[in-house]
Amino acid sequence: MEKPSTRDRIVVAGRRAMLEQGYEGTGIGPLLASVAVPKGSFYHFFASKEDFAAAVLTSYAEQYRQQRLELFADASLNPLARIERHLVQVELDSAEAAVPGCLYGALAHAAPGLGEELRGQLAEVFAAWEQDLAALITEAQQEGEVDGGLDPAETAAHLIDLYEGAVIRARAGDGPAAFARFRKFARSTLARGAGASHD
Amino acid sequence: MEKPSTRDRIVVAGRRAMLEQGYEGTGIGPLLASVAVPKGSFYHFFASKEDFAAAVLTSYAEQYRQQRLELFADASLNPLARIERHLVQVELDSAEAAVPGCLYGALAHAAPGLGEELRGQLAEVFAAWEQDLAALITEAQQEGEVDGGLDPAETAAHLIDLYEGAVIRARAGDGPAAFARFRKFARSTLARGAGASHD
Repeated sequence: MEKPSTRDRIVVAGRRAMLEQGYEGTGIGPLLASVAVPKGSFYHFFASKEDFAAAVLTSYAEQYRQQRLELFADASLNPLARIERHLVQVELDSAEAAVPGCLYGALAHAAPGLGEELRGQLAEVFAAWEQDLAALITEAQQEGEVDGGLDPAETAAHLIDLYEGAVIRARAGDGPAAFARFRKFARSTLARGAGASHD
Repeated sequence: MEKPSTRDRIVVAGRRAMLEQGYEGTGIGPLLASVAVPKGSFYHFFASKEDFAAAVLTSYAEQYRQQRLELFADASLNPLARIERHLVQVELDSAEAAVPGCLYGALAHAAPGLGEELRGQLAEVFAAWEQDLAALITEAQQEGEVDGGLDPAETAAHLIDLYEGAVIRARAGDGPAAFARFRKFARSTLARGAGASHD
């Protein structure tokens, strides 16, 4: 196995720190100490903390986009079953660090203090998630599995809002109950008028 | 008009800072400089940053609980109209600082790094909001205005999850659109089976 590069080790540590402590709560000094990398190396790779966060976000977003596109294209499952699995998967994803977290949400929380470039990147990764999920919702509507009266893009945005809220409540102590609520209300929103006629 | 005490001025500045920059992003030094209070005064009033956040949260939670109990008890409006007004009011509340924010959400984001006492207080203020809202949802169910099949406590928790998610998305650039989604999906969840029979 190839030894991870110094840059990769810093990115991995940054991802864990930002998931656990948020962007503002992540100190570059302690982070570098935890992976035994001198400060000079950090500034060799990254111009600033925001530049570093952009690299962490790129790697995180690529991994989860890949994972979700594989699932969303899995023709062995009905579209609604793929959505259902996604609703379960995002709770597992939130548990990759020691406390429930979502890097998108952590950076969104810090967004008002961030520069235009990083905020733009954050808007893009949210938009990509929305578009992928909206396309799957449309497929499920065509199968009659999801309420045909729902706007797919808006419903996808809604499910992401609800997930980010669940992460926040899980961090505050609700834990798995927050994700159980997320799934329950997401399912009933999607099913609302499925199979029934619309006015 | 009575001049605000030094303690009150620090609490007001802390509330604004934490709403805008989050708990971790709030530096006590710059905050005190902004209200021209020496650091010694701060530690006269507060044992620590967490102790300070507890005081900020107490004042914030009391104000919004008072506001919500007045609205929820307003017999000139039907229960559902009171809920509707609350869904609008919480967007206005989120706009009290320069960027969309909720102190509960900001502290929830930081919660994994906070002490037991402050986390306990945070759980209490979320629980109080849930209970007040659940009681109003029950009233609206008795009037047939809200789906009688919904569990009031769980639905109240869901609406709060959804609001916290909307605040996060609003901070990331969605602005008022995030709150419009919040209201739209909250309304349709509440109305789902209202006036209809249940299986």
